[in-house]
Amino acid sequence: MTSDLPLLGNPRSDRVRSVRALGRRAVRERQGRFVVEGPHGVRELLRYAAGSARDLYVTAEAGELHTEIVAAAVVAGVRTWACTVEVLAAMADTPHPQGVLAVAEPVDVPLQAALAGVVVAGYVVVLATVRDPGNAGTVIRGADAFGAAAVLVSDASVDVYNPKVVRSTAGSLFHLPVVVGLPVADLLEGCRAAGLRLLAADGGGPALLPEVDLSVPHAWVMGNEARGLDEEVLRACDDVVAVPIPGRAESLNLAMAATVCLHASAAAVSGG
Amino acid sequence: MTSDLPLLGNPRSDRVRSVRALGRRAVRERQGRFVVEGPHGVRELLRYAAGSARDLYVTAEAGELHTEIVAAAVVAGVRTWACTVEVLAAMADTPHPQGVLAVAEPVDVPLQAALAGVVVAGYVVVLATVRDPGNAGTVIRGADAFGAAAVLVSDASVDVYNPKVVRSTAGSLFHLPVVVGLPVADLLEGCRAAGLRLLAADGGGPALLPEVDLSVPHAWVMGNEARGLDEEVLRACDDVVAVPIPGRAESLNLAMAATVCLHASAAAVSGG
Repeated sequence: MTSDLPLLGNPRSDRVRSVRALGRRAVRERQGRFVVEGPHGVRELLRYAAGSARDLYVTAEAGELHTEIVAAAVVAGVRTWACTVEVLAAMADTPHPQGVLAVAEPVDVPLQAALAGVVVAGYVVVLATVRDPGNAGTVIRGADAFGAAAVLVSDASVDVYNPKVVRSTAGSLFHLPVVVGLPVADLLEGCRAAGLRLLAADGGGPALLPEVDLSVPHAWVMGNEARGLDEEVLRACDDVVAVPIPGRAESLNLAMAATVCLHASAAAVSGG
Repeated sequence: MTSDLPLLGNPRSDRVRSVRALGRRAVRERQGRFVVEGPHGVRELLRYAAGSARDLYVTAEAGELHTEIVAAAVVAGVRTWACTVEVLAAMADTPHPQGVLAVAEPVDVPLQAALAGVVVAGYVVVLATVRDPGNAGTVIRGADAFGAAAVLVSDASVDVYNPKVVRSTAGSLFHLPVVVGLPVADLLEGCRAAGLRLLAADGGGPALLPEVDLSVPHAWVMGNEARGLDEEVLRACDDVVAVPIPGRAESLNLAMAATVCLHASAAAVSGG
């Protein structure tokens, strides 16, 4: 399936170097491009955000294995290149990109568009100062799994187009509206203007998760892994909500706390 | 507080090398020792498993900051050494061990002892084939937070004394009984003999989490990050239980799925 595609064989070519350079945030921002690695993420990109996809790179072996990806790229008019294993490895952030890599334009949306769907019911997730790529990606994946209407990522958080974030979202980055680049104060103001109740997730909070009404439209505000949420963010929220911990552990990590909160929201929204 | 302690200043000494070598599983098993890094983990070790602690290493700065750790070590009769920053960095797995590191003997317990507490009520967690250190540590932390009676780690899973696992548990390794070194079949047989209902956590399972009775004593069986649980483990379980996913994500990662299941068990056990 890849035999009639243009073949890239030089791991030191300008094209390979320019893809690899997208591992750096400054280059991503200057070029308006980011990288999606692995068949699962690329399949979800082509399924849900094909208009953002620019180039697809596949090895011959991966092209045989994932014919639906190559076919979807052709249908979407995405330029497709056959690569040697060495070329793909030189482009990728991971040592084993599984033979498939795409370059895409940003998929984030304006704040108003992201909030449009949540006025009547549902909830959104705000990442206020989440710095760890794996945590940010996991929370986006959880927000998708548990039916959040959108994820709003403040400018003080990790870049969602960081390869580790993209990988940790497991395709969820393309499943729901994501907002980036705004200060957390603007995100909270937008949520409030949309009529959302602002719930800070914080282990020290006086409200306990089972007591909070999650059937009204709301925004979960998630803070930093080590320092939690800033005082002014806590003050801006309607409730500061803790997940009860019956055991001896002092706290949950951010991804665990977010998972429990979003799961509770999903259950409340579905009436479960 | 550390000025009267023996001072270690040579990062290439035999003692420093022998602590560093505990990063390797074979060395840990041969010597019957493992390493706990950072003030939080060491504090929990000295609080809940002081009898296992053998040596404490602190920098002068960390000794000033964490006087309660040095005091607890003295009370417990743990040999304590003052170190230079270079010595501590040379011993540690992390680039920033925050000035505190302990060497301890294994804290795992026999299977029968771990199961003794769960016959009437409660639940345990079985890690069948969990290979990623961060996932294993996070699940142990979650089991602790959500009041599990014990964690049973099969011999096909990652070593719980791996420095990354120890770190990810955030002290929870010392909070609840942990069993290691047995084949998963023996763990499941032990659970069944103790009267526990065996629940496999698996995204493909026919039972849905909200429908499962978690008020009876039970064991959550968690599988491999990529491959899930083996067929024979699934067959040995009473129910194969999926967390419902209303959104577009194909699945939850292991730590997220475990967090939701254990949280549900905690709520059922407490009657919430």
